[in-house]
Amino acid sequence: MISGHTRVIAHIGVPTESFKAPMIYNPWFEARGIDTVVVPMGCEAVDFPAFMPLVARLRNFAGALITMPHKVAVVDLLDEISTAVRICGACNAVRRDPDGRLIGEMFDGEGFVRGITRKGCEVAGASALVVGTGGVGSAIAASMAAAGAARLGLYDINAASAERLATNLRRSCPFLEVTTGSSDPAGWEIVVNATPMGMQEGDPMPLDVTRLDPASFVGEVVMKREETAFLAAAKARGCRIQIGTDMLFEQIPAYLEFFGYGTTSAEELRQLATIRY
Amino acid sequence: MISGHTRVIAHIGVPTESFKAPMIYNPWFEARGIDTVVVPMGCEAVDFPAFMPLVARLRNFAGALITMPHKVAVVDLLDEISTAVRICGACNAVRRDPDGRLIGEMFDGEGFVRGITRKGCEVAGASALVVGTGGVGSAIAASMAAAGAARLGLYDINAASAERLATNLRRSCPFLEVTTGSSDPAGWEIVVNATPMGMQEGDPMPLDVTRLDPASFVGEVVMKREETAFLAAAKARGCRIQIGTDMLFEQIPAYLEFFGYGTTSAEELRQLATIRY
Repeated sequence: MISGHTRVIAHIGVPTESFKAPMIYNPWFEARGIDTVVVPMGCEAVDFPAFMPLVARLRNFAGALITMPHKVAVVDLLDEISTAVRICGACNAVRRDPDGRLIGEMFDGEGFVRGITRKGCEVAGASALVVGTGGVGSAIAASMAAAGAARLGLYDINAASAERLATNLRRSCPFLEVTTGSSDPAGWEIVVNATPMGMQEGDPMPLDVTRLDPASFVGEVVMKREETAFLAAAKARGCRIQIGTDMLFEQIPAYLEFFGYGTTSAEELRQLATIRY
Repeated sequence: MISGHTRVIAHIGVPTESFKAPMIYNPWFEARGIDTVVVPMGCEAVDFPAFMPLVARLRNFAGALITMPHKVAVVDLLDEISTAVRICGACNAVRRDPDGRLIGEMFDGEGFVRGITRKGCEVAGASALVVGTGGVGSAIAASMAAAGAARLGLYDINAASAERLATNLRRSCPFLEVTTGSSDPAGWEIVVNATPMGMQEGDPMPLDVTRLDPASFVGEVVMKREETAFLAAAKARGCRIQIGTDMLFEQIPAYLEFFGYGTTSAEELRQLATIRY
């Protein structure tokens, strides 16, 4: 129950209708007796550079979840950014230090890596193809690199985007082998769809599924209640898979820790959430 | 339960700890199945002129409740103001028109007048003394004038404040008799404490209670769970009284109508509220 003592986590993006965080965080806060609430704020892109620093100055500001279309724009407004933010050029979590400085993190990739790791997929030493190098694809690539992947393949229909990410990764991780220019999944131990392909009915496949190796672990960022056509095709070929919402639930404990709320598990969050997948 | 579809009423002021609106509006919204939530936002005075217009541009903005210390500052940010706002120079409710214009209203006074009227006190043709001519005192005076009071006495330890309000009232209401300079309650049909005297234990009385006429109706703006010492003294002298929270609950139906949520009653709000008086 909201009162004048309640702290606010601003969930900033537009449109807000597809937001899931309120239905995941708020039941957990309530179950734990924590007087904080995630509130959707449908901020227009043109207003965001002015709005973000002002929201962060509210006395009862507890943090911000940054989503589309602000994940890149927010980086320029921060006083301190993590390596993942630097590599991706994008950020999805902001907190305010006691001295007022804004600290940014990017947890999309951490959720993905935590999820596949718990499913028995070893990232250290592995090879991984990431198709789609926008915000979330970059984050996954950065987290794979941080988790010790040996080889990353990057592909995007916008070739410059993949090249930019490759350059950032090579600079941050000199021992990592990075290649670009192909979405062929053959020969990769981990294959990730980090494009929006699959959000709409009738979308084309993000890559040639007939080339998927049955030994590959295949993951997805599209968050659907049901398995996407891409994951269904991967499963049909014998691949182990991870659905998009696993990335979501696996990353939230990392956010909560970042905002200072201690530790929890993806399972606890899933059980309490009032949204089901 | 908050989701991405939830509209937000920004409750802006600082500090937020004493805010009551979330515990009154939110249970009502929930009981009515309205997907709107009042959220406290502890905005510093220095940030308010920039923050207010940006909050109002959020796509899911449903309105703003403006409280201390922003009630005066907000007036300059509005595109359209009511007569009450013009007279008081203060505003406590803002909504956004479909074309983006910001409309301001001031309901503190309306709540006071609705409350005493329902207690059988006739305002039309009456004489009323308002002690304290800050935001809420000005609002009460403006609403008394709008309700047809014949004579108003205004007093403030800051004499210029009372004079300014008197000038505004005379300009808006040429047939109203307005006097200033005395807090003597003798001879007034309605007597209002609109000062903060009574908020703290041991505060002096806002006026000489030994001069209260037993036939006077005495009201109060200090919101305490219990009767204030001032009201207790008035009651002891035989006066009928109205406690501060009646003003609060009586004004909320006016706000809800202003924000477009239809009609309700002070009783329904009081029954649903999770804060008790």
